Amino acid sequence: MTSTKQRILDTSLALFNRQGERNVTTNHIAEALGISPGNLYYHYRNKGMIVSALFDRYQAQLLGSLEAPQEAMNWRVKVYYFESLLASMWQFRFFHRDLSHLLHADPELAQSYRNFVQAVTERGALIFGALRDSGIIKVDDEQLQGLMVNTWIIMSSWASLVHGLRPDAAGDEALDERLMRHGIYQMICLEEPFLTGEAREHLEEMRARYRGAEVTTSLLLGLPEEAAEEKAG
Amino acid sequence: MTSTKQRILDTSLALFNRQGERNVTTNHIAEALGISPGNLYYHYRNKGMIVSALFDRYQAQLLGSLEAPQEAMNWRVKVYYFESLLASMWQFRFFHRDLSHLLHADPELAQSYRNFVQAVTERGALIFGALRDSGIIKVDDEQLQGLMVNTWIIMSSWASLVHGLRPDAAGDEALDERLMRHGIYQMICLEEPFLTGEAREHLEEMRARYRGAEVTTSLLLGLPEEAAEEKAG
Repeated sequence: MTSTKQRILDTSLALFNRQGERNVTTNHIAEALGISPGNLYYHYRNKGMIVSALFDRYQAQLLGSLEAPQEAMNWRVKVYYFESLLASMWQFRFFHRDLSHLLHADPELAQSYRNFVQAVTERGALIFGALRDSGIIKVDDEQLQGLMVNTWIIMSSWASLVHGLRPDAAGDEALDERLMRHGIYQMICLEEPFLTGEAREHLEEMRARYRGAEVTTSLLLGLPEEAAEEKAG
Repeated sequence: MTSTKQRILDTSLALFNRQGERNVTTNHIAEALGISPGNLYYHYRNKGMIVSALFDRYQAQLLGSLEAPQEAMNWRVKVYYFESLLASMWQFRFFHRDLSHLLHADPELAQSYRNFVQAVTERGALIFGALRDSGIIKVDDEQLQGLMVNTWIIMSSWASLVHGLRPDAAGDEALDERLMRHGIYQMICLEEPFLTGEAREHLEEMRARYRGAEVTTSLLLGLPEEAAEEKAG
C-alpha cells in the first residue's frame, strides 16, 4: 500500500472515530491531509471505499488476534485476548458505533460483515474450548455456546451503546477510552461464574484492570461526573 | 388520542418494523392509511414526531412491565417479565434496530432515551434485587450490577444484531420473531449460573421456551436454513 493510501486511511479512521462517519466527507479528509480532493479520489473513488478498506483492516487485526492458543491457556493469556479485543474495539470504534447505517449503505460490506461474524464466532468457539480444556472455565457445551454469543454481543454492541448514552464522549478521548475499556469488564462479568482455580484467584485483579469507575451509574448514564472523574483519575 | 392519530401510529409502526424507518416516508404512511398527506400533517407535522410518539408508547409499555413485583418472586413471575420484555422488543423492534440513526437525527429524542435507560436500569436493579431476595438467584452486589448491565445490553442490542446479520428477516415475520425470541434465551444464559432452587429446576423448561433452533449457527449467521426450518417449525 502506498504511503498516501496509508495516510488517507489513518486520517479517515481518526476523523470517523472522533466525528462519526456520517459527519465526515471526502473533502474533510482531503483537507485534513492537506491534499487535493482529486488526489484523494485517485486513491479512493468515494467514502464507501475508504470504509471498506478500514473494515478490511479491522477484520484482519481482530481475526489475527483471535488465533487459538498453541499451548495450554492460563489467566495471563486471557489478558492478551482481552487487550487485543479492546485494542480493536477502540481503534475501530466508529464501525460498530454506526453499524446499521454502514451495512445499510453498502450490501457488499454487509455480506463481508456476515462472513466476518461467522469467522469471529468460529474462532471464539475454539478459544472458549481452549479455556475449558485448560481448566480456566468450567462449562458444558450449551453454556459455552451461550457465553460465546453473549461475549460477541457485548463486543459488537458496546461502542454503539456507549455512544447512544454518551455522545459527548466522542470528543473526549480519555472518557471515551475509559468507557470502552469497561466493555471488557462486562465480558469478565459474563465469564466470572464459570471461572475455576487460578483464574478465579486472579478475578479481582482482572476486574480492577478494566472496571470503569462509576461507569454504569454515572458515566454511562450521564449523571453528575465529579465522583466518577475522581475515582477514575 | 383521536382514532386517526392512533391509526397513524399503528400503521407507521408496522411499516417501520417491516421496511426500516429510513425507508418509510410520510407519503408512504398516508398512502397505506388511505388518507391525504395534508390530513397526516394535520396530526403529525413530520416523521420525527411520529417516531417520538412511538418512542413514548414504547417507553410507557416497557417501563409499565418493569414494575417491581409486590410479592415474593418465583420462576413463573420471571416468565411474565421475559414475555413482557419480548413483547416490547418485538413490537418496537425498528427502534433499537436503528437506534444510532434515530438518536442522531433528534437530540431531544436522544435525551429522552438517556432518561429512559436510566429508568430501565433503576427498575431492573429492583427486579434483580427481588429475584435475589426471593432466593431465585444467588449474587453479590457486583454480580448483580454486572448481570443487570449485560441484560440491558442484550435487550437493547439484539434487534440490531439480528438485523445486521439477517436483514432478510424483516420481510419474514415468522423468522424475525423466532430470531427476536432467542434474545430472551441469551438473557437466560446470562442468569443461568446464578439460579438456585426451584428456578434451577425449571431452567430446561425456560431454555426450551425461548431457544431458537439453530439460531446461532444457522439462522443468525445465514448458513443453510433447511435444517433450522425443520427444527423450528
